[in-house]
Amino acid sequence: MTKDELKHLLQQYKRGKISEQEIVHALSVPAYEKLDFATIDHHRQLRQGFPEVILCQGKTPQQTGEIAARIAKHKLPLLATRAAKEHFQSVKKKVPKARYHELARTITAFEPAKPNKKLGTILVITAGTADIPVAEEAAITASMFGNPVERLFDVGVAGIHRLLSQSRKLIEASVIIVVAGMEGALPSVVGGLVDVPVIAVPTSIGYGASFGGITALLAMLNSCASGITVVNIDNGFGAGFAASLMNKNT
Amino acid sequence: MTKDELKHLLQQYKRGKISEQEIVHALSVPAYEKLDFATIDHHRQLRQGFPEVILCQGKTPQQTGEIAARIAKHKLPLLATRAAKEHFQSVKKKVPKARYHELARTITAFEPAKPNKKLGTILVITAGTADIPVAEEAAITASMFGNPVERLFDVGVAGIHRLLSQSRKLIEASVIIVVAGMEGALPSVVGGLVDVPVIAVPTSIGYGASFGGITALLAMLNSCASGITVVNIDNGFGAGFAASLMNKNT
Amino acid sequence: MTKDELKHLLQQYKRGKISEQEIVHALSVPAYEKLDFATIDHHRQLRQGFPEVILCQGKTPQQTGEIAARIAKHKLPLLATRAAKEHFQSVKKKVPKARYHELARTITAFEPAKPNKKLGTILVITAGTADIPVAEEAAITASMFGNPVERLFDVGVAGIHRLLSQSRKLIEASVIIVVAGMEGALPSVVGGLVDVPVIAVPTSIGYGASFGGITALLAMLNSCASGITVVNIDNGFGAGFAASLMNKNT
Amino acid sequence: MTKDELKHLLQQYKRGKISEQEIVHALSVPAYEKLDFATIDHHRQLRQGFPEVILCQGKTPQQTGEIAARIAKHKLPLLATRAAKEHFQSVKKKVPKARYHELARTITAFEPAKPNKKLGTILVITAGTADIPVAEEAAITASMFGNPVERLFDVGVAGIHRLLSQSRKLIEASVIIVVAGMEGALPSVVGGLVDVPVIAVPTSIGYGASFGGITALLAMLNSCASGITVVNIDNGFGAGFAASLMNKNT
Amino acid sequence: MTKDELKHLLQQYKRGKISEQEIVHALSVPAYEKLDFATIDHHRQLRQGFPEVILCQGKTPQQTGEIAARIAKHKLPLLATRAAKEHFQSVKKKVPKARYHELARTITAFEPAKPNKKLGTILVITAGTADIPVAEEAAITASMFGNPVERLFDVGVAGIHRLLSQSRKLIEASVIIVVAGMEGALPSVVGGLVDVPVIAVPTSIGYGASFGGITALLAMLNSCASGITVVNIDNGFGAGFAASLMNKNT
Amino acid sequence: MTKDELKHLLQQYKRGKISEQEIVHALSVPAYEKLDFATIDHHRQLRQGFPEVILCQGKTPQQTGEIAARIAKHKLPLLATRAAKEHFQSVKKKVPKARYHELARTITAFEPAKPNKKLGTILVITAGTADIPVAEEAAITASMFGNPVERLFDVGVAGIHRLLSQSRKLIEASVIIVVAGMEGALPSVVGGLVDVPVIAVPTSIGYGASFGGITALLAMLNSCASGITVVNIDNGFGAGFAASLMNKNT
Amino acid sequence: MTKDELKHLLQQYKRGKISEQEIVHALSVPAYEKLDFATIDHHRQLRQGFPEVILCQGKTPQQTGEIAARIAKHKLPLLATRAAKEHFQSVKKKVPKARYHELARTITAFEPAKPNKKLGTILVITAGTADIPVAEEAAITASMFGNPVERLFDVGVAGIHRLLSQSRKLIEASVIIVVAGMEGALPSVVGGLVDVPVIAVPTSIGYGASFGGITALLAMLNSCASGITVVNIDNGFGAGFAASLMNKNT
Amino acid sequence: MTKDELKHLLQQYKRGKISEQEIVHALSVPAYEKLDFATIDHHRQLRQGFPEVILCQGKTPQQTGEIAARIAKHKLPLLATRAAKEHFQSVKKKVPKARYHELARTITAFEPAKPNKKLGTILVITAGTADIPVAEEAAITASMFGNPVERLFDVGVAGIHRLLSQSRKLIEASVIIVVAGMEGALPSVVGGLVDVPVIAVPTSIGYGASFGGITALLAMLNSCASGITVVNIDNGFGAGFAASLMNKNT
Repeated sequence: MTKDELKHLLQQYKRGKISEQEIVHALSVPAYEKLDFATIDHHRQLRQGFPEVILCQGKTPQQTGEIAARIAKHKLPLLATRAAKEHFQSVKKKVPKARYHELARTITAFEPAKPNKKLGTILVITAGTADIPVAEEAAITASMFGNPVERLFDVGVAGIHRLLSQSRKLIEASVIIVVAGMEGALPSVVGGLVDVPVIAVPTSIGYGASFGGITALLAMLNSCASGITVVNIDNGFGAGFAASLMNKNT
Repeated sequence: MTKDELKHLLQQYKRGKISEQEIVHALSVPAYEKLDFATIDHHRQLRQGFPEVILCQGKTPQQTGEIAARIAKHKLPLLATRAAKEHFQSVKKKVPKARYHELARTITAFEPAKPNKKLGTILVITAGTADIPVAEEAAITASMFGNPVERLFDVGVAGIHRLLSQSRKLIEASVIIVVAGMEGALPSVVGGLVDVPVIAVPTSIGYGASFGGITALLAMLNSCASGITVVNIDNGFGAGFAASLMNKNT
Repeated sequence: MTKDELKHLLQQYKRGKISEQEIVHALSVPAYEKLDFATIDHHRQLRQGFPEVILCQGKTPQQTGEIAARIAKHKLPLLATRAAKEHFQSVKKKVPKARYHELARTITAFEPAKPNKKLGTILVITAGTADIPVAEEAAITASMFGNPVERLFDVGVAGIHRLLSQSRKLIEASVIIVVAGMEGALPSVVGGLVDVPVIAVPTSIGYGASFGGITALLAMLNSCASGITVVNIDNGFGAGFAASLMNKNT
Repeated sequence: MTKDELKHLLQQYKRGKISEQEIVHALSVPAYEKLDFATIDHHRQLRQGFPEVILCQGKTPQQTGEIAARIAKHKLPLLATRAAKEHFQSVKKKVPKARYHELARTITAFEPAKPNKKLGTILVITAGTADIPVAEEAAITASMFGNPVERLFDVGVAGIHRLLSQSRKLIEASVIIVVAGMEGALPSVVGGLVDVPVIAVPTSIGYGASFGGITALLAMLNSCASGITVVNIDNGFGAGFAASLMNKNT
Repeated sequence: MTKDELKHLLQQYKRGKISEQEIVHALSVPAYEKLDFATIDHHRQLRQGFPEVILCQGKTPQQTGEIAARIAKHKLPLLATRAAKEHFQSVKKKVPKARYHELARTITAFEPAKPNKKLGTILVITAGTADIPVAEEAAITASMFGNPVERLFDVGVAGIHRLLSQSRKLIEASVIIVVAGMEGALPSVVGGLVDVPVIAVPTSIGYGASFGGITALLAMLNSCASGITVVNIDNGFGAGFAASLMNKNT
Repeated sequence: MTKDELKHLLQQYKRGKISEQEIVHALSVPAYEKLDFATIDHHRQLRQGFPEVILCQGKTPQQTGEIAARIAKHKLPLLATRAAKEHFQSVKKKVPKARYHELARTITAFEPAKPNKKLGTILVITAGTADIPVAEEAAITASMFGNPVERLFDVGVAGIHRLLSQSRKLIEASVIIVVAGMEGALPSVVGGLVDVPVIAVPTSIGYGASFGGITALLAMLNSCASGITVVNIDNGFGAGFAASLMNKNT
Repeated sequence: MTKDELKHLLQQYKRGKISEQEIVHALSVPAYEKLDFATIDHHRQLRQGFPEVILCQGKTPQQTGEIAARIAKHKLPLLATRAAKEHFQSVKKKVPKARYHELARTITAFEPAKPNKKLGTILVITAGTADIPVAEEAAITASMFGNPVERLFDVGVAGIHRLLSQSRKLIEASVIIVVAGMEGALPSVVGGLVDVPVIAVPTSIGYGASFGGITALLAMLNSCASGITVVNIDNGFGAGFAASLMNKNT
Repeated sequence: MTKDELKHLLQQYKRGKISEQEIVHALSVPAYEKLDFATIDHHRQLRQGFPEVILCQGKTPQQTGEIAARIAKHKLPLLATRAAKEHFQSVKKKVPKARYHELARTITAFEPAKPNKKLGTILVITAGTADIPVAEEAAITASMFGNPVERLFDVGVAGIHRLLSQSRKLIEASVIIVVAGMEGALPSVVGGLVDVPVIAVPTSIGYGASFGGITALLAMLNSCASGITVVNIDNGFGAGFAASLMNKNT
């Protein structure tokens, strides 16, 4: 249940539209549910606007399937990230509507029917082709919140005209997610061109002294452009989630 | 000139309220101004919503004073960060209205008369007393954009009831800036309680294996709570600026 | 032979309950036993209260089996950690009573029949589901010393109510082991709530800037809560052993 | 108020020894006290067994004096660490009983009259002469809890007979704190000789590849001896505090 | 003596223009000269095209003066870098023609009268004002080789139009030196715009996670633009020297 | 189209040798071409003297084949680096002329018929046998630009006479690429012997404290010899490309 | 040819025992031999007392076999380290006498018939069982020089009596090699007990914050005992070689 | 008392040259002496061949003076390293014969009258002038053991002929200490030229990516030349001590 739904419910009750019993039942979802290996946070949607998301990494397929089932029981939007095929197969058995996004290694179900037009557009940009999987994780996450999402891929700074020629897209976005590996310079250029929040996502793309994304991460943290904030290496999900919170304000 | 001012100007012109000459003059601020030691970006307000901010560190007091004078000439809001007293004295000579915020090591002038009530509140939280200078840099920056700002200091996780008892403040904020050194755990707890963007600012407070803020930075990047983005160590300005961009959407 | 057994033996001898020959025989276990590839420390139980524990990592299955046989010969509690299946198979041949705890990658034999009720409870907490294998290594180790052990899994700080609602368990424990990866914030919150020793165990769970557990390790070393001590990344065994020494004092 | 005091109070009330008004008054210390720059945690003694300790580093002398005054108002034991002379002077004005331990850079007041004989002895060992300031911080902290404390200084592993000849002291201790810089090897040797908790404290003593204590810290985390836990570099206070919690169980 | 001078000399001798004795004398500069504290390499100009350069850091003013005197004796171009005022004073006594470039902390003497017009232009660019001292060290070094040098300062990527509007300068240069701190992104953008060698110089300008220039260094090593090579942090001299070797080919 | 070709074309047009329509057609290659997963930079040859090079790492074989096809359509020299066999097979289908250099993991097509004799020689040196793959990547890249290339392998500093006996080769080169792992000392020795640009390429060859090439990289950045610039670890391509730009000046 | 053989030869010649032609022939081994992929240093035995040793890592089996054949042609002692089985098979074909030491991953041939009794004993000690492979590499290397070698395995500091009871072996050795992973404390204890050179070899044994041997390496470099020198992580060969040079002096 | 003196004494006693009382008195030096802040190891000379050396860093001048007095009481050679002037003044008062070596920051007293001619020569080499202080610490230490010492300064690899022209000195030495900062390449070149032990000493000389000597340290650990061992950054004392132990064997 989201905050908005809760407010609506309380108003309905006040106006006598629903009985006391009905509201008690609606509010009776326990704050969390305890399994042997997990303590599922059922109030997260109320507090954070979105139900608990499953990070599959480090969980067995069975555990993943079990948790997914508990979330899906309430027909809540289901999102699982860093999912291997084995995780998906286990989830699919419990949640038949689940779909697997192979490139983004993401499982979704009960996603919004279509983007909420009242929200601004979230633009997802990558520096290179190899950064696309992380960008897709971000884009799918943002879509789960109902945000309109645009993509602009492979426009890194070594050929800056590729980016500049798309400045219209930059200017029309409400929030911009910039995904880059190697030297991670793209967010600085983008950040200097716009007046909306820019979320920089370093990726582990590169070799040698890229150190699995540390170089890109450090570069982004030290950006000379203002208004840029950063998430963990390869954390497309985190960027998509934060962008959605920022976009809610529109 | 901000985007809004520009739009207004163009509409005035279209409606015949101002002459062609007037609009040409208004738009004649050059895109940048070249000094021997600096290339001042006069279009930044148009692109980013705020004029160029002076990072005093690494600049001589003279250079700082000179740049401040060029910005102040247009009566634009002036913000200079990491300013030593010597920087302030040099600026003061050129910009008599300039004020020095000692704790935050910040110079301001031509700040907004009062907060813009149409904007949501930006809440600035610190884990400890020693984190306050960075928090103040963030708060002053946010105020320069006209944002209403609230402060909540020294509510670190070792006494979690100090934070939880203030949950109303958390829930009422539009954007939250969390400033913490040492283990940098506070943003994770805050992030789990709210549905607005949380900007985490690691500080260099701590000793030994805190490594001048690296530990707090890493912890924040790895937060298990969703919706958190991070800025550089001790970068109160960056957090305040990004928070302002996020808050504009309200 | 433990210190208590030794004291008992000496008193028996003093009181004439056992002969000189008997005590000589009992004490005739050599201080160590030399194999080609190992020097087994047979006095460790006397000095440290527990016989030598086998760290399987880096040992061949044969070496492991051989060492286990020497320890088991004296019917001493046998504990082998970081054991692959191959290690277990080799041990099983020599020590038929050996059992394999797959999740915890641990081999045990001659464990205590049941917990010693005179000892306080050791509580093992995890931040996430993926931290459970390390927590189990700690729990099994503590059990080998005869400690009562309780588990509380997946109560990380992003949903702090899950932990707070279990505060009774926290308050009743004698020693608490907190196992967490990612930003490693949970020990700070727990440490602020209790007045018993808290042992923090960082895990290698996470990705990107979690650096295989370094972030969690650093966070725990910098905890703003007092009374927390730390062990190596993924060192569930070390935490269980230290907790047992701390609990002995009860 | 400690837990024991609270229990005693409640029993007194139950038995009619004290009036309702008296107990209400005794319990009326607020959970925390809010200053402009600090939120003092007045329930910490109840939760953790000791009032809030002041880490002076990063605080101004004034702030330190102010906080000390609030704690001392309740005649609670006062401990301030990493205190420069300026901090002491400011505290002295507000808390005339305060004493300064120059070597340990520590301020104390309202310390226990003498050690509690029912508690075991906490032994503080250093590898070298240069490690003594950190050791003293640990020893003073442990003394504040009423623990009997013994010292054994400059017995590093390069002359192992210096340590071995003192084995009686090692065996008689309840908890041992080992303070060492450089290669940090001493805790491993001590840890192999005893069956009580050993807390290892790395110091920043050394040069070149000692990296300000990182080498000692890493060595201690990787100790091949069991039962060792570690605190932050130079964190004598943390070791003394944790040792006190461990010793309480006796 | 440079290679060209040597070739000329040999041709003169072959043609009988100079006597055997003259050529012997000319060649009689020993390969090196041994002082107590230094072994001066007198053949370096022959091998490398420029006499030994004095790195003052770590040398006493006396040592510096002594070495400078030996080099200046042959009227060779004298260059000393990272020179404090004390170094200059000591050099000045021995080499009266020596000049001190305060911003660049560099001493020069016997520099070329004017740039060699047959050589292409070396362009030195900085991202910010604070990078200028390093850039000046590079520019002065390049000038010592007789190269025409141009400067373009404070054109960092946060206001990319400042750079793009100067594209003519970029295109006309033979070799480009790009000096930048913080995220070090500027060389990637420049590198993508030109077809001449680009030498990237990271500076220690920045704070927090800039780690004294490491971030800029790593970013430059990972540049997605081709044709960029990198020198040590703050090594303006190295960049100027290498640029001169590259420019010789014109 | 290269700059030279463009200049030629314009002159032809000016002289009436080609019609307006012809020049329009010739210039009608769009600046870039947008695929779903890539934005191919078709003006790179014009700006940088060489068409876009494909870094296969992180791209799927299909993506690689697709991009190669677009570049090859214009009969431009094709270079793809870090190519696995799967990448080659996919490229081969689209570009039948493509060849695979297994040791160097490189794909080429439309390479120059033979070296351009007007260019100086680029010499590629390795310290050891294991450094050859990286050296070959550099050599092949340099050859694609039409440079004459010489190789000198396994002449590391532990047997310095192997290098010194080849000093003629060193002296005759225009640009030298030195490839070395382990302690990376070879560039310093080479750099001290020549007056041409030396590009140092650290390799990931070594073990233990070589840290995958970091040691060699750091050593090269700190070289006491002047005129050395450095590229990323294992970046043979980057060295070959930069060497070509440097060599163009001849 | 060793230095001693060369001296002998020259004396023979001087005394007329061998003809000019014979000595010319004997000295006609070229300084090095050039293959396509290697430059074999045939004078290394003369300069360093032992022929070139083959580091197999990074070389193909063919290359290894080829190089081994060239060395073996002169019946010189052959040593190849970090050899996989494939390397051995390739060497075996060319050098039928070659033997493979699996644990030590080492190939030898033409080794000395028996230890040289005039040399002191080299003692190789390990802290644990898992350190044995590195210790064996050291022992085999030392044996190739004709040194008497003793082994003492698994005597780490957690059971210090295991080492102390073997003090006779320590005192009788000429040079001691101490091999240890984890916290690397053993060399410090050994170094404090003897007056002969101690070579410390860190190993990559350990987990978590052992960082693949970095912790042990750092600890050894910071040893508080005097007379200890260190080699690279897992570099048993280097330790054995250096020990042999040190032992030659006896 | 050294081992040789002890052996001599025992033989004298056996032959009746000295009385029982005399030998008892001679042996009556206690194993260690306990001060409040130090435990002086009086048997170190017997075990290690040299009395305890004082590392002044981290000790107060008083402590240093006190310890020096205890050592000097026995007329033993006194060596104190990393001594500031204040340390020397305090020592001078207690040990009037003490001398201060300012460059090497070392205090000595009761040094050997002259070098022991039966020992081989220890050669100390530096790469640069700035490395001399560390080299002097090594040379003085070696002299305290009675070793003949030679110096060869400023012969770094950028002018390799400076070293090669001194090859006679290299070949005549028994042990070589090579002191170098920056890229630390010199030991590799020296190590490849000689057949005696080479001790590499990294120094903190350099800037930027030299990281206070880490780069030189890593380079030395990864040397491709065999027979090199390494000590801590700037550890001239350690090198001199180890060289003396190695030289004893001659």
